[in-house]
Amino acid sequence: MLEKRIRNKNLLKKVVAPEVAAGAVKDGMNIGTAGGILPSGPRMFFKALAERARKGEIKEVNIWSVALLSNEIDGLLAETGVLKRRFGSIWDNTIRKGINTGKIYSNDLRVEMFSHYLRSKTIGKLDVSVIEAVGITEEGHIIPPAGLVELPNQVEAADIVIVEINNTIPVEMEGICDVYVAKNPPHQEIIPLRKLSDRIGTPYIPAGEDKITYIVESDLPEMHPPVLPISEESKVMADLLLSFLREEVKQGKMPPNLLPLACGIGNVSDAVMKLLAKSEFENLEVFSPLIGDGVFELIDAGKCNIATAPGILVSNEVWKRFCDNIEEYKKKVIVRSVDVSHDPGIIKRLGCIVLNNALEVDIYGHVNSTHIGGKLLVNGVGGGGVYAANGYLSIFLTNSTGKGGNVSSVVPMVAHVDHTEHSVDVIITEQGLADVRGLSPVERAGKIIANCAHPDYRPLLTDYLERAGKLGGHEPHILDEAFSFYTRLKKTGSMKES
Amino acid sequence: MLEKRIRNKNLLKKVVAPEVAAGAVKDGMNIGTAGGILPSGPRMFFKALAERARKGEIKEVNIWSVALLSNEIDGLLAETGVLKRRFGSIWDNTIRKGINTGKIYSNDLRVEMFSHYLRSKTIGKLDVSVIEAVGITEEGHIIPPAGLVELPNQVEAADIVIVEINNTIPVEMEGICDVYVAKNPPHQEIIPLRKLSDRIGTPYIPAGEDKITYIVESDLPEMHPPVLPISEESKVMADLLLSFLREEVKQGKMPPNLLPLACGIGNVSDAVMKLLAKSEFENLEVFSPLIGDGVFELIDAGKCNIATAPGILVSNEVWKRFCDNIEEYKKKVIVRSVDVSHDPGIIKRLGCIVLNNALEVDIYGHVNSTHIGGKLLVNGVGGGGVYAANGYLSIFLTNSTGKGGNVSSVVPMVAHVDHTEHSVDVIITEQGLADVRGLSPVERAGKIIANCAHPDYRPLLTDYLERAGKLGGHEPHILDEAFSFYTRLKKTGSMKES
Repeated sequence: MLEKRIRNKNLLKKVVAPEVAAGAVKDGMNIGTAGGILPSGPRMFFKALAERARKGEIKEVNIWSVALLSNEIDGLLAETGVLKRRFGSIWDNTIRKGINTGKIYSNDLRVEMFSHYLRSKTIGKLDVSVIEAVGITEEGHIIPPAGLVELPNQVEAADIVIVEINNTIPVEMEGICDVYVAKNPPHQEIIPLRKLSDRIGTPYIPAGEDKITYIVESDLPEMHPPVLPISEESKVMADLLLSFLREEVKQGKMPPNLLPLACGIGNVSDAVMKLLAKSEFENLEVFSPLIGDGVFELIDAGKCNIATAPGILVSNEVWKRFCDNIEEYKKKVIVRSVDVSHDPGIIKRLGCIVLNNALEVDIYGHVNSTHIGGKLLVNGVGGGGVYAANGYLSIFLTNSTGKGGNVSSVVPMVAHVDHTEHSVDVIITEQGLADVRGLSPVERAGKIIANCAHPDYRPLLTDYLERAGKLGGHEPHILDEAFSFYTRLKKTGSMKES
Repeated sequence: MLEKRIRNKNLLKKVVAPEVAAGAVKDGMNIGTAGGILPSGPRMFFKALAERARKGEIKEVNIWSVALLSNEIDGLLAETGVLKRRFGSIWDNTIRKGINTGKIYSNDLRVEMFSHYLRSKTIGKLDVSVIEAVGITEEGHIIPPAGLVELPNQVEAADIVIVEINNTIPVEMEGICDVYVAKNPPHQEIIPLRKLSDRIGTPYIPAGEDKITYIVESDLPEMHPPVLPISEESKVMADLLLSFLREEVKQGKMPPNLLPLACGIGNVSDAVMKLLAKSEFENLEVFSPLIGDGVFELIDAGKCNIATAPGILVSNEVWKRFCDNIEEYKKKVIVRSVDVSHDPGIIKRLGCIVLNNALEVDIYGHVNSTHIGGKLLVNGVGGGGVYAANGYLSIFLTNSTGKGGNVSSVVPMVAHVDHTEHSVDVIITEQGLADVRGLSPVERAGKIIANCAHPDYRPLLTDYLERAGKLGGHEPHILDEAFSFYTRLKKTGSMKES
C-alpha cells in the first residue's frame, strides 16, 4: 500500500512502526502537529507516544499547533499527564480541563504570529514535526491532505520530521493545497496573491529525502464532527445578516456579489451559508480561517466558484461527498498555508466579510470569545483576531442568552477582551442586529442593548448605562458594578435579578 | 507671495478671505482636516469657522481627523459648542473635556480603518476637506507639508476642498511626501513598497483645478510642542530596551542593524533614540506612526538612513534644524499617507520593532492606552493597535507608578483594553523588563509583577494572583476584586493599602 504513496523509493526504508517513530522524542521536546484532515491528525504516532508516557519512558512534552486537535492527540496526551505546555487553540475537553486547572501551561497564540515564532525561535525551537500526509513525492516532498495550516513552517523549523501516511485519505487529494512559505523580516517578500483563485506556491510541503526522519503508516479512518441541526436562533441571525448585506449592496458599500466571506465554522455560519445558497447572491467567494459544511453547500448550489482556507472541518457526510467528487472540488477549493490565509494585509486588501462567534459582548462592543467568566479557556483566540481587525466588515454573532436564559450574552463589561470595540462593526443575536460603525460608545451601548440584548436583561443594562452615564466619561462605567452580572450568576445561578 | 506658491494661475481667482471659505460650511457637515505640520493645521479657516459659530450662523459640525489637532482647531471649536462629533484621536484639553462629559460624541477610530471609511462612506460622507499646504502645482495638485496622514483620502472623498497655504512653511518642503492612495476592495491592489526608501506615489495630493473650491492664505507660524527634559525613568527604560535588543541580535532573532523602528513620539521614545544615537548600532531604519525629535537626533548622528511616517511632530528647535537643512533631510525622510504607513501587511512584512506607551498594564499583559479609570478618554487608540498587533516585536512602556506613587501602572485587571495579551511581547517600566512571549497567563503575571511593578505594589498584586490562582482558570481572576485598586484609589486617593 505504502509503495504507491511513497514515490521516492529511498524513503521506503524510513518506514517504521509508530513506536519507533515515537522513540525519537526526548523529554521536554517541542512537538508540532496539526490535524491533516481536521481534527484527526497523525494519531498512530501520538498513540505510541502516549504509550511511552504511560510506561514512564517520557515525562514531559510540549505541543505546538494552531489547529484544533482531537481527543486522540490533545486528549490522550493530557490524560497521561505528559503534556506540559500547549501553544495554540484547543478543542478537546481533557486538555481544556488540564489548562483550566493550571496543570497544563497554555498560550492560545494568534495564528498569524505562529509561523513567525517558528521561524525566529522566539518561543523556543520546534524539535519535532509530525504530519499526517497523503503521500510523498519523487523528490521527497510531503503531500498534505486538506488541512495545511502551519505545517510547512513546522517542517522548515523542526530537526525531526515524522510523516504519518494515512491510507484512508484518497490519493486524489494531491493538488488541493497551495503551499506558500514566507520568510521572516527583513527578508519577507510581498505575497503575490492577487485573485483568490491564484496558486502561488507548491502542491506539496517542501521537505526532501534528508529532511524526513521516519515514516509511519496509518489506516485509521478520519474523524469528523457530528452534524448538529441548525438552531432557530441561527436561522434568525442568518436572516438578519442577509438583510443587512442586501442593504449594504444597495447603498453601494460593496459589490452585488459581496466580498470574500470569512465565514469560519459552526451553527450560525452554516445557517448563513445555507441561506446564501438559496438566495439571489451569485459568484460568491470564500476566504476563511476554516471551511465547514456550509461552504460545500454554497459550492454545490453553484453560488461559489472559489473557496480557500488553511483547513477543512466538515461532517462525515460532507467529507464523503468531497472525496467522491474530489477532482471537481479541486477546481473550486484551495487549501492554503497560514502565511497566506492569515496574512493581515491580504485579509484587508481582499476586504473580507468576517463572521466570528462571540461568547459575550458588552454594551460598548468589546467581545469575549475565549474565556468563560473571564478565566476559563474555551478554545482560544486562534485566527479570529486578525480577521476581525482587518476585515472590511467585522460581524460578531451569538445567541442573546445561554444556560436556559440565566446567562446574558450582553453584559455591562466583558470579563475578558479578545476583540476591542475597534474591531467590531456589527453585532447580531437572535434579538436583532446592531450596526455600531462610527458611533460613540454611549450611542453603541444604546443600540446594542435595544437591538441585541434579550428583553429580560434590557432594563438591567439600561439602568447600568444610565447610572454610569451620570458619572461621566467617554465610556462610562461604574467599576464596582461592572461585573455585577457575573456576581449575581455565581450567587443565584442566574444573571437575572431575583 | 501666493503667486509664487500657486503655480496654476487659474487658481489664483479662488483665493478668498478665510471668512468666505468658512462660509462654504453648512450645518451638520462633516469636515476633515489634519495638522499639515502637526499639530498646527489650517488655523485661519477654523478661526473663521469658530467666528461663524460664535455669531450663531452655524450650530453644528463634525470633525474627522486621525491626526492630533491643536487647541486652535479642536479646542476652538469645542469651546464654541459647535462641535458635535469627532472621529479620530485627540490632543487638546478642551475637546477632551467635552468628550468626557458627554457633550461631544467621539469615536477614536483606528487610523488604518479611516481611509476605508472615507472611501466607502460607511460612517457618512465627508463634505469638506481643509488642508494646510505648501503650495499648488501647475496641474492644480496640492503640495502637502510634512504631515500627510489621511489628507489624500479626504481630498478624494470631499466635495468641498479648501487649501490653506501657509507662507511660513519653506517652499523647499515640496518633495518630502510620497502620496499613495489605495482603492477599496474588491479593487485594492498590492501596495508595491519593497524597501523603506521606495517612493511609490506622487509628491503631491492629487486634486486638479476643478477639485479645489477655495484657497486661503495664512502667515501663522507653525506650532510645536515644548521640549521636555528626558526623565530619569525614561533613561532607565531606554537602557533596558537596548540591552534587550542586543540580546535579541546576539541570539540571531534579528539582524545587527535591528528591524525598522516604529518608535512613535514622547519622552521614552526620545530617550531610546538618544541612546541609539550614541550606541554601536548602525544603519537603522524608522517606519513609524509619527516622527519626533529623537529620530532627527538619530539621523544627525549618522545612524539612520531612512525614516518614514505619515507625520512629523517635533519641537521648535528641531523644526528649525529641519527647515535649515531640508534638502539633506529629504534624502532620508519620507512622509507617507496612512494607506501605506498604517497598512497591517506592510508593518508585518517589514517586521517593525514597535514602541507604544501604556497608561497601565495588567498582570496578564492586557494594555490600557486610552481610558483613565476605564472611562476618561486621553488621546485615543490611533495607530497603536495596528502596529502592536502586526509588529515583529511589540513593546509597551510606562512608568511603574503615577500621581506621586499613588497609582500603580500594573493592576490586577485593566479597566479598559486597547491591546490584548496577544499583542504584547515585552513590557518595560523603570523597574525592569518582562519578556512575556510564549508564556502562559500565570507565568506572565509572575514575571510582570516581579519585573515591572513598583515594589510598593508587588505584595498586593502577588496576593491577588495567588488567591485567584487557587480558584482556578487559565487566566485566574476574582471578578469581585479585579478592580479593587481603582476602588481604593477613589476612596483613599491611593492604590496603596492604608
